[in-house]
Amino acid sequence: MNYQRFFEDAIDQLHAERRYRVFADLERIVGQFPRALWRANGRTQEITVWCSNDYLGMGQHPDVVAAMQQAAGGMGTGAGGTRNISGTSNPLVQLETELADLHGKEAGLVFTSGFISNEAAISTIARLLPNCLIISDELNHASMIEGVRRSGAEKKIFRHNDVTHLESILQTAGRERAKLIVFESVYSMDGDIAPIAQIADLADKYNAMTYIDEVHAVGMYGPHGGGITEREGLAHRIDVIEGTLAKAFGTLGGYITGTQSVIDAVRSYAPGFIFTTALPPAVAAAATAAIRHLKASQVEREAQQRQARRTKDVLAGAGLPVMDTPTHIVPVLVGDPELCKMASDRLLGVHGIYIQPINYPTVPRGTERLRITPSPFHTDALIAELQAALVETWDALGIPYAAAGRPAVAESERIIPLLVPTSGG
Amino acid sequence: MNYQRFFEDAIDQLHAERRYRVFADLERIVGQFPRALWRANGRTQEITVWCSNDYLGMGQHPDVVAAMQQAAGGMGTGAGGTRNISGTSNPLVQLETELADLHGKEAGLVFTSGFISNEAAISTIARLLPNCLIISDELNHASMIEGVRRSGAEKKIFRHNDVTHLESILQTAGRERAKLIVFESVYSMDGDIAPIAQIADLADKYNAMTYIDEVHAVGMYGPHGGGITEREGLAHRIDVIEGTLAKAFGTLGGYITGTQSVIDAVRSYAPGFIFTTALPPAVAAAATAAIRHLKASQVEREAQQRQARRTKDVLAGAGLPVMDTPTHIVPVLVGDPELCKMASDRLLGVHGIYIQPINYPTVPRGTERLRITPSPFHTDALIAELQAALVETWDALGIPYAAAGRPAVAESERIIPLLVPTSGG
Repeated sequence: MNYQRFFEDAIDQLHAERRYRVFADLERIVGQFPRALWRANGRTQEITVWCSNDYLGMGQHPDVVAAMQQAAGGMGTGAGGTRNISGTSNPLVQLETELADLHGKEAGLVFTSGFISNEAAISTIARLLPNCLIISDELNHASMIEGVRRSGAEKKIFRHNDVTHLESILQTAGRERAKLIVFESVYSMDGDIAPIAQIADLADKYNAMTYIDEVHAVGMYGPHGGGITEREGLAHRIDVIEGTLAKAFGTLGGYITGTQSVIDAVRSYAPGFIFTTALPPAVAAAATAAIRHLKASQVEREAQQRQARRTKDVLAGAGLPVMDTPTHIVPVLVGDPELCKMASDRLLGVHGIYIQPINYPTVPRGTERLRITPSPFHTDALIAELQAALVETWDALGIPYAAAGRPAVAESERIIPLLVPTSGG
Repeated sequence: MNYQRFFEDAIDQLHAERRYRVFADLERIVGQFPRALWRANGRTQEITVWCSNDYLGMGQHPDVVAAMQQAAGGMGTGAGGTRNISGTSNPLVQLETELADLHGKEAGLVFTSGFISNEAAISTIARLLPNCLIISDELNHASMIEGVRRSGAEKKIFRHNDVTHLESILQTAGRERAKLIVFESVYSMDGDIAPIAQIADLADKYNAMTYIDEVHAVGMYGPHGGGITEREGLAHRIDVIEGTLAKAFGTLGGYITGTQSVIDAVRSYAPGFIFTTALPPAVAAAATAAIRHLKASQVEREAQQRQARRTKDVLAGAGLPVMDTPTHIVPVLVGDPELCKMASDRLLGVHGIYIQPINYPTVPRGTERLRITPSPFHTDALIAELQAALVETWDALGIPYAAAGRPAVAESERIIPLLVPTSGG
């Protein structure tokens, strides 16, 4: 075994398959969001970011920045330990109280990432419940799939947002068996929304626990930013609501909220929570500032919805294949991985517009796309520039101006092979 | 299935077994480290932290705090995306270059935690290598065990730091088979050090890859803070050096360093790296400031070693059962879980001294201990206070003033059951 040679070959293979990824080296500019400096080949250039998950630009909000700076100045830059061994800071305690309140739940628990919150919470809950059956939407995020896998519990996959299929699985399992339904509210790559009320009805009917991932919705929907479950008045009908601090709340970390006992069980039994350093007080303080601001202010949500709507309209108006979505996410269909990568490269190199290509396995083959995330700070002028740049790129590369609508997706395509690197993520 | 009742029972059981953990709500005070405010039962009290992993107090260093504040002010509080989708900030690129340089390696890769860096790197490397055998020290950290488990590869456990046992496993596997030896430099609970040179010799002899966890050593040992491998001139003989930014470097996150191709393979294939939001630029900038400072300055390392030595001497001088260690970690043996918890509670409540009890399964039954981590900021006066408080506590609770030395550990005790909550971590 020649180890060095083996890993070199593995990388060469990625290059050969054109799946080798180069990360763009960016420096965002506070006060000029979504503008950023892009460094490549020894040059620095100012560009516009159109694919950030800092959906509302809260990462540059003066209150949020000030909260981080003040906590760092007063309490330092790190937590100094795990939650149990000196790492539980007062800002973290406040943050958890704030999150429980946001979702109308008894308790909250913060993790260092949304990935870990899903993985640790799903695996721990399903492992604790005797003979638990996990029933999981086929399009769930990689972190939820890891949680399911790691639980060791039996799992059944239901067709995306298909409540009829979900019910047939519940029916077969019966009322007595422990069951955990795991799903998302907003699916990030397609921008569609789960039938939450119907899933909650089925959970009641068949006595199942429910776990929803609201990472792409918290801060964005509902009068206080409590997500789709708040907007639809359904938060009290879902047992565990999971979210992130790293998207609309502009910082870092993930969390779950639920009853005191469920949260306490995850807190007490999840290795991925127990054996890791806590989030720094400065990050927790910044997140709390963002949540509090978005609980009271509608300005960011309204502006973001308006600019997302406008982006869809302006791009569709030029005949670009905008995939229809009920959310803030604006996918534009390319339908070919090579073209998708070339379009992204051309947008950045020629137009100074940064949008990552989204290829298989993050999305099914044949549905490769540019995933655009307009924020309140993407002005009408920036949207017009984006339209012109996309049209130029579409023409230059011969990408079809097909009719819109969501392409059909073969179910078998949605299974993510373990060792295939992805364009998404 | 009554879910609510089930989880309530699970928590009641923890209470009944006295294993329910209450996290201390702390607010560290920059400039007065290791002093902190402790909030409990509606009261706030100033206490001394003696169990922080911010070993050198870098979390409050003016350069580190300023770096975080400045980056937050200029670039915002969050990364805004995964590494691939707009989350790679320039401070993160600089940090990875700095880390590669620290360990004399070609490349570095940063994760949001040390837990994830171990889990993702070990599982990905062992999964990529065909028919890989993982050979793992029995006392490896939970995050390494998770990486081994998740790899799906065959594993063999060798007795702690036992190179004879390690060699017999290597010999049986033979030179041709892919083998990954995973171990730590400093074992955090006992404070002992691995025989790195001998392990590297065996790796050469039997053609195995080597992976070392230096989380409790980076920043602390070696003329530039490159860890035990730097101090002993062995960094070039280890394939992958893993470390943390959350202990001596005072911030948050974990990392690996190695050859370009190994690092690139983990970067390209590890779901736990790909599908998670990047570390905020402000955290990366603070970490880089801490690393750069500790590359040049010996003051912190020397003061820390001096105060750790002094703490051991002063406590041993009072007849307290200090467990002998060659490192900065000062375990004091209690030998009973109940007494250990009571000692910790008494120290905090009566003496304003915060030291978490370390019980099974973090350490074997019968070796329950207080794990003390002196920093450069624990003055001689604070050490004297600690001695007096421990003596008062030992007398009040009747804890034996036994002779020191490391108690023998039954191997079977070291296997951590998956669902047993731990006092450590």
